[in-house]
Amino acid sequence: MWHHLTVRSRRRVDLIDVTEEVDSLVRKSEVQEGLVVLYTEHTTAGLFINENEPNLLQDVQRWLEEMVPQDHSYAHNRVDNNADSHLRAILLGSSLSVPLVGGRLGLGQWQRLFLAELDGPRTRRLLVGIVKG
Amino acid sequence: MWHHLTVRSRRRVDLIDVTEEVDSLVRKSEVQEGLVVLYTEHTTAGLFINENEPNLLQDVQRWLEEMVPQDHSYAHNRVDNNADSHLRAILLGSSLSVPLVGGRLGLGQWQRLFLAELDGPRTRRLLVGIVKG
Amino acid sequence: MWHHLTVRSRRRVDLIDVTEEVDSLVRKSEVQEGLVVLYTEHTTAGLFINENEPNLLQDVQRWLEEMVPQDHSYAHNRVDNNADSHLRAILLGSSLSVPLVGGRLGLGQWQRLFLAELDGPRTRRLLVGIVKG
Repeated sequence: MWHHLTVRSRRRVDLIDVTEEVDSLVRKSEVQEGLVVLYTEHTTAGLFINENEPNLLQDVQRWLEEMVPQDHSYAHNRVDNNADSHLRAILLGSSLSVPLVGGRLGLGQWQRLFLAELDGPRTRRLLVGIVKG
Repeated sequence: MWHHLTVRSRRRVDLIDVTEEVDSLVRKSEVQEGLVVLYTEHTTAGLFINENEPNLLQDVQRWLEEMVPQDHSYAHNRVDNNADSHLRAILLGSSLSVPLVGGRLGLGQWQRLFLAELDGPRTRRLLVGIVKG
Repeated sequence: MWHHLTVRSRRRVDLIDVTEEVDSLVRKSEVQEGLVVLYTEHTTAGLFINENEPNLLQDVQRWLEEMVPQDHSYAHNRVDNNADSHLRAILLGSSLSVPLVGGRLGLGQWQRLFLAELDGPRTRRLLVGIVKG
């Protein structure tokens, strides 16, 4: 039930729309009804669902900086200089659950699936699980 | 496996307890054990689980305003004046997973399921998925 | 499909790594592929996935205090003096979804499962659901 997607980020913080890649896996599975679970195996990346509107994605980036400033006296930064990336990953979460309806992702009209790279640029791995309903 | 619920909000931000409606769908399904997934198809609404205590719900509303102020220089507000609603939806998330045990929602004693309307008043659609265990 | 874990916290805020206990239940189930869902039945506890690095866990605790200060003029504190615990539970969420692959939890190299006690010390109950894929 688990498939892999590889995603290449280009910046330290990079919000990457993975909807097409996930929907393509769902269609290939030929499952008609069920649940799709996205999972990131990383502790400095997160997942979220929202609209792919460039101004809004700027706002999301700025909001992540407001919620968790990059420069702050983090204890973890004595070990590895990316405490903000870990905290932002906790804020967003490591998984998404999405309906599978009629052989396709059952997203709303404006919804898109995003991988949030929070400590890039890197190559990331996404797991896509398809549970038959 | 997917059922629909329609929810009518009355204010811009409106925290609506949908526990009874979801539990009613679960009981009608006659599934004894499994997983219930709630999903909102919207990019300006979210879902959360907590206690239905009126003072606490006031605190949740104020906290949403503290985490994501409505009035701020958001880039998206040049397109549509609701960037705060989108960011609050990302903060809360678009889905919930809840145990189905003994033919009922397996919530804790104080837990209730809430739809958070973040850009109302509107009519919203919730998907309720029942996965047999 | 649902198993119980009992977890004892020792402080008001206590971030407890439950990975071994969950993986042990998964191995005993002998399910080879599927989905593991963790669920907390409480309204003042949350769940998250990240690295078990002591400095980082200090940062998570301080970040929870920055996102939701314990001392603030919360309305709920007229009823019960733990509004911050409820809001932090909403911030983190009540469930986690994790892949089950090869009869084991399919976590990434640095990922660990944490119960966040937010109003301890207490005895807490975790539900672990195993869905066959």
